Amino acid sequence: MDIIEGRNPVLEALRAGRSISKILIERNAQNQGSIVQIVEAARDRRTPVEYVERQVIERQSTSGAAQGVVAFAAAKEYIDLDDLFVISQQKSDPPLYLILDGVEDPHNLGAILRTAEATGVHGVVIRERRAVGLTPAAVKASAGAAEYMPIARVTNISQSIVALKKNNVWVVGIDMGGKWDYGEVDYKLPTAIVIGGEGKGLSELVSKRCDYLASIPMKGKISSLNASVAAAVVMYEALRQRKK
Amino acid sequence: MDIIEGRNPVLEALRAGRSISKILIERNAQNQGSIVQIVEAARDRRTPVEYVERQVIERQSTSGAAQGVVAFAAAKEYIDLDDLFVISQQKSDPPLYLILDGVEDPHNLGAILRTAEATGVHGVVIRERRAVGLTPAAVKASAGAAEYMPIARVTNISQSIVALKKNNVWVVGIDMGGKWDYGEVDYKLPTAIVIGGEGKGLSELVSKRCDYLASIPMKGKISSLNASVAAAVVMYEALRQRKK
Repeated sequence: MDIIEGRNPVLEALRAGRSISKILIERNAQNQGSIVQIVEAARDRRTPVEYVERQVIERQSTSGAAQGVVAFAAAKEYIDLDDLFVISQQKSDPPLYLILDGVEDPHNLGAILRTAEATGVHGVVIRERRAVGLTPAAVKASAGAAEYMPIARVTNISQSIVALKKNNVWVVGIDMGGKWDYGEVDYKLPTAIVIGGEGKGLSELVSKRCDYLASIPMKGKISSLNASVAAAVVMYEALRQRKK
Repeated sequence: MDIIEGRNPVLEALRAGRSISKILIERNAQNQGSIVQIVEAARDRRTPVEYVERQVIERQSTSGAAQGVVAFAAAKEYIDLDDLFVISQQKSDPPLYLILDGVEDPHNLGAILRTAEATGVHGVVIRERRAVGLTPAAVKASAGAAEYMPIARVTNISQSIVALKKNNVWVVGIDMGGKWDYGEVDYKLPTAIVIGGEGKGLSELVSKRCDYLASIPMKGKISSLNASVAAAVVMYEALRQRKK
């Protein structure tokens, strides 16, 4: 069971058709802007709504930012790597995946899912261990994108890279020491972009498995970018090339 | 007085020549990797180092992530807008500024400063009210960039835009409704990029003052990006154009 907190996340979950068993709304907030939209969307989907005191909402909230509404949803299911290939077959553009090799901060994961959804990434691959999953904080930071973005959670990133290559996907690891400039990579081909964890970068085995390593140029004295920023810069370069 | 927490932030502050009155290091951590570098850098700069118990460090820490080291520094000074123009005169490339119209999250501010430093931005302009300043959390999230990046804190962003325009700087506001694609803008000219606050975008007066408004394309269902991601995508497009 997942608890979804906050007005936008709950509204996005309803709109995405996620299976929700019940929504709690703060009695005093029921006439406020987006709460009205939530109630309408819930009615359309025959999802039960219950009006409660603020304290009831706060007891359920882990983020402290429920904004007067929480929803109880069936846990979002991760998919298999093979499902990603099926999803890509239904798309009109070549496969584009994002692989996260150990991102640990839920805000970074959320921001990354948000950018992935905005740039047309087909699916995201995350690591099962020593990495963050879809926690309430990550879902909230994703601003709804967690509902739409297919996520494969795998035990072994380097094995997943091997499977991707067998499916004719080019795998580019983003690494400070990468020989290529990220802007020189051809993202119009079927591509998986691999981003390392905060402060650690790519693990050794993973960087060896990549078809090539590319770096993001940095003009100043600081030697690395925030993980969600690095991912965004590369995903938007991919979108830029594909739009042409 | 600023308290700088964590190994990288303290090391960056030393390297940036910031005025530090004292460094406290956890007794049990003094032989660990980057602590050794901190001690060396402090010796070079004749900055006093004191070895203390862990609890002493923790009492000073507000972030809870001091990693065995805190430094006491003279408060970082904000500069005037006019100083930014002087800084740019000493640079070989045309002025490039980033204006934040109400960013409130310290992690976003930190990530933005980090990307600004990496992309060669000459200076950042932030708002005095209803916006985050250089809090310890923002400094930590900047991974050292807060030390190097000149920051002007102004009472009125739209007046600052007028002053920038008088100095022949083109002002481009990033806004979901912007007519231009952010990739069509010519950043090789003297440019100021304006980014709005989280969830709010640009304020009305500010968006009117901009020379033009540009949007970042979004392919999916989500309608906005994280503020630090939006800023990064535009700053890297500016760097890409200027490198050519």
